[in-house]
Order: sequence, then C-alpha cells, then structure tokens
Amino acid sequence: MRTRAAVAIEAGNPLEVMEVNLEGPRPGEVLVEIKATGICHTDEFTLSGADPEGRFPAILGHEGAGVVVEVGEGVKSVRPGDHVIPLYTPECRECPSCLSRKTNLCTAIRDTQGQGLMPDGTTRFSTLDGDPILHYMGCSTFSNHTVLPEIAVAKVREDAPFDKICYIGCGVTTGIGAVINTAKVEIGAKAVVFGLGGIGLNVIQGLRLAGADMIIGVDVNPAKKAMAERFGMTHFINPKDCENVVQEIVEMTKTPFDRIGGADYSFDCTGNVKVMRDALECTHRGWGVSVIIGVAPAGAEISTRPFQLVTGRVWKGTAFGGARGRTDVPQIVDWYMDGKIEIDPMITHRLSLDEINKGFDLMHAGESIRSVVIY
Amino acid sequence: MRTRAAVAIEAGNPLEVMEVNLEGPRPGEVLVEIKATGICHTDEFTLSGADPEGRFPAILGHEGAGVVVEVGEGVKSVRPGDHVIPLYTPECRECPSCLSRKTNLCTAIRDTQGQGLMPDGTTRFSTLDGDPILHYMGCSTFSNHTVLPEIAVAKVREDAPFDKICYIGCGVTTGIGAVINTAKVEIGAKAVVFGLGGIGLNVIQGLRLAGADMIIGVDVNPAKKAMAERFGMTHFINPKDCENVVQEIVEMTKTPFDRIGGADYSFDCTGNVKVMRDALECTHRGWGVSVIIGVAPAGAEISTRPFQLVTGRVWKGTAFGGARGRTDVPQIVDWYMDGKIEIDPMITHRLSLDEINKGFDLMHAGESIRSVVIY
Repeated sequence: MRTRAAVAIEAGNPLEVMEVNLEGPRPGEVLVEIKATGICHTDEFTLSGADPEGRFPAILGHEGAGVVVEVGEGVKSVRPGDHVIPLYTPECRECPSCLSRKTNLCTAIRDTQGQGLMPDGTTRFSTLDGDPILHYMGCSTFSNHTVLPEIAVAKVREDAPFDKICYIGCGVTTGIGAVINTAKVEIGAKAVVFGLGGIGLNVIQGLRLAGADMIIGVDVNPAKKAMAERFGMTHFINPKDCENVVQEIVEMTKTPFDRIGGADYSFDCTGNVKVMRDALECTHRGWGVSVIIGVAPAGAEISTRPFQLVTGRVWKGTAFGGARGRTDVPQIVDWYMDGKIEIDPMITHRLSLDEINKGFDLMHAGESIRSVVIY
Repeated sequence: MRTRAAVAIEAGNPLEVMEVNLEGPRPGEVLVEIKATGICHTDEFTLSGADPEGRFPAILGHEGAGVVVEVGEGVKSVRPGDHVIPLYTPECRECPSCLSRKTNLCTAIRDTQGQGLMPDGTTRFSTLDGDPILHYMGCSTFSNHTVLPEIAVAKVREDAPFDKICYIGCGVTTGIGAVINTAKVEIGAKAVVFGLGGIGLNVIQGLRLAGADMIIGVDVNPAKKAMAERFGMTHFINPKDCENVVQEIVEMTKTPFDRIGGADYSFDCTGNVKVMRDALECTHRGWGVSVIIGVAPAGAEISTRPFQLVTGRVWKGTAFGGARGRTDVPQIVDWYMDGKIEIDPMITHRLSLDEINKGFDLMHAGESIRSVVIY
C-alpha cells in the first residue's frame, strides 16, 4: 500500500513529507493506522545526527497511538479495529529478560530493531522508486501507517483519545514509571526532579500519585515553575540563584529529628552528566536512590567518589520507566481516563503531518512541552 | 586504670607498645577487656597517613572481641562478664538512620567518633604524662582495655572463641553482609568477586551461603586461587591472562537460553576505581547489581557511561556489610559456631601485642589473610 510519512533522509536536515510504499504485515506483525504521534527529544537526538546509532533514510517517531488495520499470520493478541499504542520497548513474555521478573528490557527483537529493521531483517518501507527506508525504534509513527511486531503493540481502551494517549507511548510512561517501577517511591518521601521539561513534569505527577510529601523541582528556567506546580511540585530551586544546589537540597530536607538531610529519591531528566552527579549527591546518606532518565551525549561519563555509594546511596537508571509495555501501558491509559494523571495541559501544540518540522522548531525554541501530530 | 596498648604516635611510623592511662566508663559507656583483635587494612590505611581523616596520637584497631569489665551509669543491655564484639558502626535504635529500616549507618555518635572522641567529646585514653590519646573508629582494640559506648558493643554467646570471632567485628561481617544485606543475592545467582583478599573470601563464603550457582573470582595473583576455591569460588579469572575481563565474564555467564550474558551480582573488594567500573560493566543488562566494598584512595573517582545504568544496572556500596551491629553480629557468631561459615583458615597468623607491627609487615608482604593479636 501507499501511505504518507515524514522521512528523515539524512541527519541534520528537516523531515520530508512524502508518499511511501508500505508492505503488509508478515507473520507475527500488525499493520497500524497511526492517528496521532508526539514529537520527542529522542527523535530530535537522532535527526540531529548526535545519535551514534542513528541510521538513514528512516521514518522516525516512536510515541504514537492508532488502530490495527490488518494482522499477519499467527497474530492472536490483537485484531483489526483494536486501539493500540506502539511500543519501542516490546514485551515478548518469553525471553530471558521478560522472564527474569527484574527488567522491562525485552530482548526478543533488540538486534534488528537497533538496525531499523523488522525481526526478519527486512524493512517494510520504501520510496516510490523502491529504495528501502528504515524503521526507527521499531515504531516509525511519523508515518500514517506502519507495521509493527505483535509484541510491540499495547492494546488499550477504545474511548481514550488518540491525541492525548499517544504521549503515554513514551514521555508519560517514562516519567511516571521511573517513580513507581524503578525508584518505587513510597508515601511521605522527599524527592527532587532535575529538569522540568516533559519528562520532569511526568516524574512530578508520578511523585504526586505515589504520595510524596516534598517534590522539589530544579531548573535554570524560572518560567517552568508554574506548570511544574500545576503537576504537584512543592518547592522550586533555580541553580542560578543558589551557591550549591546539593547543599541547598540537603538543607531543605532537614527536619528537627533528622539533621543529616538529603532527598530520599532524585531523578535526572536533563541528560547532563554534571547534573546526574548532583542528583546522586543530594540524596540522603544511608538510603538515597538516584535515577537517571535523561540521555547523555555520546561518550559523556558520570562520575563520583565511591564514598557516596559506600555510605548508602544507590545509582540507577530507567528506560521506558521500567514499564512492561503490553502489561503496564493499558493501565496508565486507564489512570488517565480516570483522572488519576493528567496529560492535556502538556500537549501544548497540535500540528498536521505537513507541519511536523514546526514541532522540532518549537522544541528547539523551548516553547512546547509536547507537540502532537494529528493525522 | 592503666593498660597496655599499641599507640599510633604519628602517621607513617610503627605502633609503639606502651602503658597508657584509661579512665573508667562514664554514663552510657562500658569498659571492655579486649581478648583478641584482628589487624585490618583500614588500620593500615590510617597508620600510613593516606587517610585524610586520620588523627594522631591514637589507639587504632577496630576488629576485636572481649569481655565487659565494668558498665557506666544507665547501661542496661550488657553487664560485667558479658562477651562482646566492639562495633565501629553502632546501633542506637533511635536515630533517623536506625529507624529508617533502610540503612545500618547509625548516626547517633558519628561526629565525635570521627574526631576520635567519646560521645561527650572527650577521650578516655592518655599517656602516663597525661597527654590525651585519641580513640579510633570508636573502638581502639589495639589496647588491652578500652571504653566504648553501650550502643557500640554487640553481646555474643560465651562459648565462641575470641581469637576467631574478633574477625566478625569487621571483615567477616563486611563480606557476608554485602551479599545478604546489600545485594540480597538469591539462590541460583551468578556472581563475580574482584579481589580475593580477606574481604573477597568472605564475600565468596557469603555467596556460597546464599546459594549462588556461579562464583567467579578475579585476582591478578594466581596464588589466591586455592584458598578462594576452599571457600566456594567456582571459577577463577586472572586479568593478566585475558584480554578483557568484562567480556570474559559476559561470555562465561551466557547460557543456551540467555545469549546476553553478564553477572547478576558483582562485588569490588579492591578499592581500585578502574576495577569498580569493570565490576559494574560486567553485570547483566537489565538487572545487574554491583556493590562497592573496597575503600578507594582519597580523591579517586568512579565513572561510567550513564547508558550502563539506563539499561538496568545498579551501582551501590556497602559499609560494615549493611549489618546492624547489635542485631546481626550475634547471629553471624551463631553461624560460625554452627559451621555455616568458616573463619579458622583465614586466621593465618597469631601474634602478641608486642609483635603487632609484624602483622602490618605480613599484610604489606601479602603473606597473611588475617593476623590476629591475642592479649
């Protein structure tokens, strides 16, 4: 079939919206009509050329929602008409990772996905001239239709609006999941969130959901404060206004009983390795847990004195919020529909596919939280 | 009273064995006759001058066992005649850390202990001329008699031999505790231990106790192999004999089902920050946990790419094996008496107090696992 897509021809250039060829689903695959897709920093990271694993030409986009149009041989878990969210972290439920009960990082199709290919090592996309176009993160939601492995779609309720729940395909789940799956924050905790962009806001609402007492946001841009408060932030620190962020957080978290101070949990949503160090070191001696969410530039390294860990701090990270896509994503959609979490105020811009490059411009200008393309 | 002690007059010089004055216990303190004490690398670290927090003159030693001789006002948990192990990590059971249920790092007397003083800010030791001598790690077991806070002694059974259980005061508990309290290793796990000195051997026997399937030991000295096997090591790697230790471990831990490979748990017992990095990076994607036990040189830093954490590895550390001294140490003594763990083969040298400097020489020469001074 033919469909319309925004194609990343090469790194550093705007996407080109064009007709492309799309082969139907092979065994174990499904064809999905994408109804809406968010534009995420990870798409930008790859498009810019900064991603050392980026491959071109490719159809980017990994934060979508849509409807199953056709299923390949042997597909049992979804059928045409089902509403689904594509999963860049699949959930096969039979690989060593899925069966470990310790991680969400399913490895069933990791190798081919990383190469921009379907599990059988081929691509379903091509130009009208027949030149292959690569998939991206196994999703390629910047195409009106896309083909995905069955294990890479989460079936969700049909009354949920596509233009909102597409954000659950990445940002919402990453932020909320980091709190509840990776850090396992408990009621009454004191937490710090570094970076108040889209992920940071979702971490904040995850903390509110988890019942945290103190939710400290840190950002160099004071304009972020109001929206973060809207999602549950209780205290704000602008690092430009204080001498030492770590010390500031330690002081803020002291109580008459606990004169040591430090956050119970911290989250880096900046991708800056210096901030990641602060995020670790501002946590409480004995039990502080710091979670890295942000993606650092290629080659950048985190560092600290091992004493920080020997005295009880834990340094960890999260991908897709530790969420098992097919199992946990439908639940997050329910939470949205039940009003337990909010998404609408974060969708700041709505674009057509033809306007997709404007979404990247808005991101660069820091004007959007999330731009969503509606097909 | 007077007692005999090995005094560290200044950094870099041998200890001097001499008579010293010791004041009796004040309220909340106990006077203990030390019957045996191990000589630990931490004593050496401080004596050498490498410890930036080292203070002199002081009576070192923190790995002892003895008998309560006298108790100060208000002491309720022990009485004269009780057998005890001094605790450099006390357990007050009422500070924020003890009550957190998340850490063993009691902070009740941390500030004064770090300064070489009793909780009231004074020292009980002095020279015969009346010049003060500092305590060390709250223990000072290189003195035949010493005064300790009540919260810094673990009462243990009376049939346990002092010259063996003194080692539980530091090395044994640190190694075994790192496995069971900090890493919480489960039956069937694959684990790697970097550094096969005394701590490494105790980690190995902790792993055996925990039911690990694969216990890989890593050391540049092949002479360590036999003793490590004696304690449960199943595989040995000499980094000098392979190109890349991390890759070697990843290969060794692959199975027909799991082609990713990597250790479930790793432990650094070297204090070398480069080794700490290898220890993290050789663990399994998705769930590997790496525990830092070794003490690094002042100012040394660990580093890695954040991607290692984002893909599911966890970096943590341990002090005194995460053990609550008064609660857990008596249980480890029971395990020794019941034959669940071994200590005897690790006590390689027995010395008198007058021979204590020989113990440091044996350590420098790598000839001892543990030298114990018997009073």
